[in-house]
Amino acid sequence: MSDGLFDGVLAAGPVAELVGDAEWLRALLDVEAALARAEADAGLISAAHAEAIAAQCRAEYYDVASLGAATTGVGNPAAPLVRALTERVAGAAAGFVHFGATSQDIVDTAAMLVARDAVAALAEDVVACGDLLARLAADHLDTVQAGRTLLQHAVPVTFGLTAAGWLSGMDSAADRLTALTFAVQFGGAAGTVAALGERGPDVVRHLAARLDLDEPMLPWHTERSRIATLAGALGGVSATVAKIARDITLLAQTEVAEATEQGSGGGSSTMPHKRNPIAAVSAAAAAAQAPGLVATLLSASAHEHQRAAGSWHAEWRPLRELLRSTGSAVRWLRTSLERLHVDVDRMRANAELTGGYALAERITSELVTEHGVSRAKAHDAVAACCASGEPLVDALAADVLVGAHLSAERIAALLDPASYLGSARVFVERALRHHEARKEH
Amino acid sequence: MSDGLFDGVLAAGPVAELVGDAEWLRALLDVEAALARAEADAGLISAAHAEAIAAQCRAEYYDVASLGAATTGVGNPAAPLVRALTERVAGAAAGFVHFGATSQDIVDTAAMLVARDAVAALAEDVVACGDLLARLAADHLDTVQAGRTLLQHAVPVTFGLTAAGWLSGMDSAADRLTALTFAVQFGGAAGTVAALGERGPDVVRHLAARLDLDEPMLPWHTERSRIATLAGALGGVSATVAKIARDITLLAQTEVAEATEQGSGGGSSTMPHKRNPIAAVSAAAAAAQAPGLVATLLSASAHEHQRAAGSWHAEWRPLRELLRSTGSAVRWLRTSLERLHVDVDRMRANAELTGGYALAERITSELVTEHGVSRAKAHDAVAACCASGEPLVDALAADVLVGAHLSAERIAALLDPASYLGSARVFVERALRHHEARKEH
Amino acid sequence: MSDGLFDGVLAAGPVAELVGDAEWLRALLDVEAALARAEADAGLISAAHAEAIAAQCRAEYYDVASLGAATTGVGNPAAPLVRALTERVAGAAAGFVHFGATSQDIVDTAAMLVARDAVAALAEDVVACGDLLARLAADHLDTVQAGRTLLQHAVPVTFGLTAAGWLSGMDSAADRLTALTFAVQFGGAAGTVAALGERGPDVVRHLAARLDLDEPMLPWHTERSRIATLAGALGGVSATVAKIARDITLLAQTEVAEATEQGSGGGSSTMPHKRNPIAAVSAAAAAAQAPGLVATLLSASAHEHQRAAGSWHAEWRPLRELLRSTGSAVRWLRTSLERLHVDVDRMRANAELTGGYALAERITSELVTEHGVSRAKAHDAVAACCASGEPLVDALAADVLVGAHLSAERIAALLDPASYLGSARVFVERALRHHEARKEH
Amino acid sequence: MSDGLFDGVLAAGPVAELVGDAEWLRALLDVEAALARAEADAGLISAAHAEAIAAQCRAEYYDVASLGAATTGVGNPAAPLVRALTERVAGAAAGFVHFGATSQDIVDTAAMLVARDAVAALAEDVVACGDLLARLAADHLDTVQAGRTLLQHAVPVTFGLTAAGWLSGMDSAADRLTALTFAVQFGGAAGTVAALGERGPDVVRHLAARLDLDEPMLPWHTERSRIATLAGALGGVSATVAKIARDITLLAQTEVAEATEQGSGGGSSTMPHKRNPIAAVSAAAAAAQAPGLVATLLSASAHEHQRAAGSWHAEWRPLRELLRSTGSAVRWLRTSLERLHVDVDRMRANAELTGGYALAERITSELVTEHGVSRAKAHDAVAACCASGEPLVDALAADVLVGAHLSAERIAALLDPASYLGSARVFVERALRHHEARKEH
Repeated sequence: MSDGLFDGVLAAGPVAELVGDAEWLRALLDVEAALARAEADAGLISAAHAEAIAAQCRAEYYDVASLGAATTGVGNPAAPLVRALTERVAGAAAGFVHFGATSQDIVDTAAMLVARDAVAALAEDVVACGDLLARLAADHLDTVQAGRTLLQHAVPVTFGLTAAGWLSGMDSAADRLTALTFAVQFGGAAGTVAALGERGPDVVRHLAARLDLDEPMLPWHTERSRIATLAGALGGVSATVAKIARDITLLAQTEVAEATEQGSGGGSSTMPHKRNPIAAVSAAAAAAQAPGLVATLLSASAHEHQRAAGSWHAEWRPLRELLRSTGSAVRWLRTSLERLHVDVDRMRANAELTGGYALAERITSELVTEHGVSRAKAHDAVAACCASGEPLVDALAADVLVGAHLSAERIAALLDPASYLGSARVFVERALRHHEARKEH
Repeated sequence: MSDGLFDGVLAAGPVAELVGDAEWLRALLDVEAALARAEADAGLISAAHAEAIAAQCRAEYYDVASLGAATTGVGNPAAPLVRALTERVAGAAAGFVHFGATSQDIVDTAAMLVARDAVAALAEDVVACGDLLARLAADHLDTVQAGRTLLQHAVPVTFGLTAAGWLSGMDSAADRLTALTFAVQFGGAAGTVAALGERGPDVVRHLAARLDLDEPMLPWHTERSRIATLAGALGGVSATVAKIARDITLLAQTEVAEATEQGSGGGSSTMPHKRNPIAAVSAAAAAAQAPGLVATLLSASAHEHQRAAGSWHAEWRPLRELLRSTGSAVRWLRTSLERLHVDVDRMRANAELTGGYALAERITSELVTEHGVSRAKAHDAVAACCASGEPLVDALAADVLVGAHLSAERIAALLDPASYLGSARVFVERALRHHEARKEH
Repeated sequence: MSDGLFDGVLAAGPVAELVGDAEWLRALLDVEAALARAEADAGLISAAHAEAIAAQCRAEYYDVASLGAATTGVGNPAAPLVRALTERVAGAAAGFVHFGATSQDIVDTAAMLVARDAVAALAEDVVACGDLLARLAADHLDTVQAGRTLLQHAVPVTFGLTAAGWLSGMDSAADRLTALTFAVQFGGAAGTVAALGERGPDVVRHLAARLDLDEPMLPWHTERSRIATLAGALGGVSATVAKIARDITLLAQTEVAEATEQGSGGGSSTMPHKRNPIAAVSAAAAAAQAPGLVATLLSASAHEHQRAAGSWHAEWRPLRELLRSTGSAVRWLRTSLERLHVDVDRMRANAELTGGYALAERITSELVTEHGVSRAKAHDAVAACCASGEPLVDALAADVLVGAHLSAERIAALLDPASYLGSARVFVERALRHHEARKEH
Repeated sequence: MSDGLFDGVLAAGPVAELVGDAEWLRALLDVEAALARAEADAGLISAAHAEAIAAQCRAEYYDVASLGAATTGVGNPAAPLVRALTERVAGAAAGFVHFGATSQDIVDTAAMLVARDAVAALAEDVVACGDLLARLAADHLDTVQAGRTLLQHAVPVTFGLTAAGWLSGMDSAADRLTALTFAVQFGGAAGTVAALGERGPDVVRHLAARLDLDEPMLPWHTERSRIATLAGALGGVSATVAKIARDITLLAQTEVAEATEQGSGGGSSTMPHKRNPIAAVSAAAAAAQAPGLVATLLSASAHEHQRAAGSWHAEWRPLRELLRSTGSAVRWLRTSLERLHVDVDRMRANAELTGGYALAERITSELVTEHGVSRAKAHDAVAACCASGEPLVDALAADVLVGAHLSAERIAALLDPASYLGSARVFVERALRHHEARKEH
């Protein structure tokens, strides 16, 4: 049953395939192979048996569709795979397939392999977004832009600062991904690895080494904090994307027109003014999947006793979907940033749209702090000028109180957005240094 | 990219396929065909052109995988499909493919077709579950079972009442599905159907008639209450399944053993006592997907202006997944109920497990209401007997106060669970009558 | 412990108080009083006892804070209230306080009373919003506005149509509220009402009549579809608000400036251009609470057996919060609409911002349908003009192909947004008629 | 408006008060005081002015209810507080109240103070739970318990291992809390701190030092990864509680009876068998609030531009509620663990309930590995004995194949749960060592 009609939007990028059935099958088989070898490492079974088993752990020998169908019987994909694998392994070695393991050992460990690889691919796109944002921040260190609060113009910022804010979110997201760990699951039927006598812990250690996963302190069949932490980190990445994508679609509005996705399919031959920011839109749509998926994973945390009656099965879909949709969100954001054309002139023009009103408080401050005018009087005079409907510089220069202290040039200078950017540059430089330092680690 | 590894659990039943790509493609093409014909009905285009278009609206002419891939360009599957369809339609008719429509018209209307058919299949399984539950309720009208509150034994119930409670939930779920309506979407680029001059409303009417969908009052590109209502109804169905599935897994516990799924794959040759209620477990896992998906759909409700910048795209996956997981939940519940073996003797034995303590309050009431003992004295006497550690009938009969008023036989009768079932039978009969009446409509 | 610091934003309007502790206490006591009287109605207890009990069911006799604190002991507020009530009732009547009831009977029935009254107040605000929207739609039947898709200008609409779309969402929300039903809960310890012998159903009937609630088919202690349906309807209302509030904040943007909240606290004395749409912002913030709360209520649906081990308690907070935040969302939206100033001139100016490009496809259509030009040629000619950078009317008039068929006047007429509004008026009139018809019922 | 009726269950423990209005007011004032002093530290204002301001930053001077009410005007509680504070500050210092700050600077920084203190209190309860669990794990190192998978008996475990699994989840939760950081927010109207000229970063540094918060790289008004991370950690804590609470309610079931909450209000005088695990039930109910609240916080992540149009306001309630409900969950779990009585004999009896069937596979293994019987033959013989309905030891001893190789004593030994605990002890000891090591840091 194909399911890809919406994947162009909601499952773009490399992660989608890395969490697909083919990779899952490969991961399940990698775990079975590594388990056999780890048991040989621990002296439980012979190396020959281990290799005989491992030799059959090749994805091309199995049909993922029939495994999926067979799930119906016992409720998980490992059981039919083990049956099929055992059938392929010749002779005595067959008795050591999946030895001492329970289905959840295999599926959870495979999930960790799949998640680890998907997170690695995701992190690459996150870093790529970071690099693109760093470039934007550096390029626009001095690009004046209207600050906007509650979607109303406020005092000016630079587009460099806007991009640096995006960058710091992206670097935080990268940090959370980097901090993730992925551990082997191995406990046998009830978490005691009893079938292996005393050699359970040895096998766990060797298994972790062979799969390059962490060794857990104890089996975590029903202790799902790893899943919750992974979900949280992915939710955080999507949240970061959501913010940046929203900003881009707002900046791309016809009336704002400060940023455009160039060269995309979002254009229209008869409407050259219309350039749908389709990559940002897709990023937003994909990122919007995360909160509900995180909630589903957290809601499934009350795994009963030694293995759960439903909560475990409930994790499979949302974990896969969360990786996939987050992967798509980041990939689409990367595409949007690659396509992004910034219109510096338009930014400047927009920043001046309100004709200095945004900076009128500067006149008040100057009157108070430099000229000893009382705050109340200064405020009233400036407010009156603002309300006058006249061009603000003229109104202020003509005002008895204001004009007595400030020349028209001084007034114009104070109302120039470029002169009121505070520590924007300092903040941008910090974000850039931090981003560089991150990459050097 | 196959995605079916977990479908045996989380995407069982007919709904899964009904929301798959093949059905979506068919629905998209059905809409294009019906649109052409509706435009002919309205006198906008010739019938010949309409039929020329409709003749190419066959799923086998198109490849869903390449459509999915092409989504990347413009951000939705209708646009590449229209392109491919237009290419197939010969001559002048090609100019009338998709005439006056926007992509969202096609995708939303197709979504309604897909949802309508999926809901119909879902409702069949819901009704089948209802019938199975009605049978259980009727069969166990007099089967005594321990009532359990906060997972502790309380006063007795009948298993018939338990099943009638499940049934009433299932019938409510069916009512919500029945109440759903599905409407055509058609508004053109910005909801005015301007390309059709004044004939837009006519086309909408004909389109609705041809697809057997409702005619909407006005286009609902960004008014998504239909989606919210659908999501709510599906969430309600999953919620109902979740409750019943939880109860079944609890009744199937080794220590409780009142219900078993027979003849399933959940058994074990060496552990005949072990019969995993795998259908109920799968139902619970599938039902657990719903709350997060409903939240995602509700969160996507703020569609901007005439067509949204991401919120629309964000609906596609969760709507499909919600239909699919709810379909799987109901199908697995149906399977569980078909397999369910009820152990009447075990129910009775469990109901007597607490040796009458659950009914001790009856002794108090009898002493107060029939024998004029003060409530305080009666309560203290009974409490002392309960705390004595003796078999309760003996302790009560031997008590000075209790024994003075009640014989051992009377005490035993009062402590018999079967004698304290209140209106259980009345309630069961009501639920059964209601279920029958529902079906006759 | 006060909790109102954020209530100005997130708990505005009458609903907040209607779901507060004082109303809850009143509702709990109303249920106890009605229960005593219903039991007298059914001949189970004397009318004198019933009145003696009812006389003590006055909120001023009890302290909600100590009840809340006492919840700690048994885990719900009904138990300590029953204790306190019993203490106040003199003599024999005390034995009939809460007779045959379990705590959940009282709390659930009180919840229905609280929800019913809160929904009634909510519905009033919803209707008021509908009236305000209907007024906007009627007033702006001919107000041209830029259509916006993916936040880019598309073909024109009217602001009347925009408002009619909002209105239809609001009327749908009102329909869902109107369809809600509220039922008595009464089943005793395990849903059999066994303590009342055979008179349980009679008491339920009288209780429903006395409280003006529906009589349920059977007790619904663990069949929570009523809660799920209520949650869904409230989630739908919030979703509708979210869409309208988002649109208002977008229309209020400095660069768009088509709508402003006038006379609010959102203004600034020195920044007269800055008028934060604080009511719409607050509405959006309150509406954003709903999806998570709905998910929490749906997630709590698997109530075990006869009464749940946690899922029931888990409903209390989200149900209250969902009523409250939805109430706040609707109230803030009403405020925003009351304050809303629409700038018709700005709408027109914005609609012309793209200089006719949005309508360029009309030229193509006219050439094809009226002048027999092939679609491909017509399209290429128009596209070239669009890309020319010249004023569009001039470019088209000067084009060899276009100019040969269309005069400059005709071109200008075709590019006039007011001439391309399709069925906007029809749709608005439909929505207005529907709204009027709703109110007459 | 009081709101405490359900707080006994859903807002227990110290966190509830630490996130209440009183603490919020104190935190808001602490930020204003620290800001004035930080600006003096940076040489922006005089120390005298700073102290004049700080002197008025005392909670008792302000009324939280009227601040909440005043929120309605501008949409946040900082603005009316600043107005009230400014009114109290005499003379020239009044001009430096809130100097250069925007409301969000104050509210976000106060949120960090509130969250930091709440998390500290929460972490204490988490550690206390960990200690109680460590004690349980140590005390029950050798207590045999039935392993349960899908709520069916499987091979045995120890209750020590069960508790160690709970402990490892609790220690992970503690780790996530410990890793949280809390940073100052300070950026002025649009994140440039422009009103402070070049001294913005200095003020941020001093402000962080004075409040003992981290110094952020740049303002994070619309970069909410801190909130997402905090939400994820709290969601993780609640998830851990949910698992343990579920297990306790299951172990407390009348039929299982392995664990009881002693000395609580959950008991009943006439039903001594009935001991509602009310603390675990309350913990489960409180923990169930988290997933929806986490989703709400993540959904609110797309903060527009420099300050958001609703998403910021949308965070206030769920952040407070998430802290509060998680605090309640952990506190109730702590109470449940303090009350927990473990019935070792019942555990052993339950573990033997299935009469050795759970261990029948051991007989097969022994026959294969020690006696050279073919796996198929061994399996068939054992399966036949299991299906015989006879006591298993007898059936096996009497079997021709099995009896030929194994004595009745050997069979009984192999079927003894205490002899098949695998590495349970090793795992418990690891978890205990890890817990001790954590505490020493």
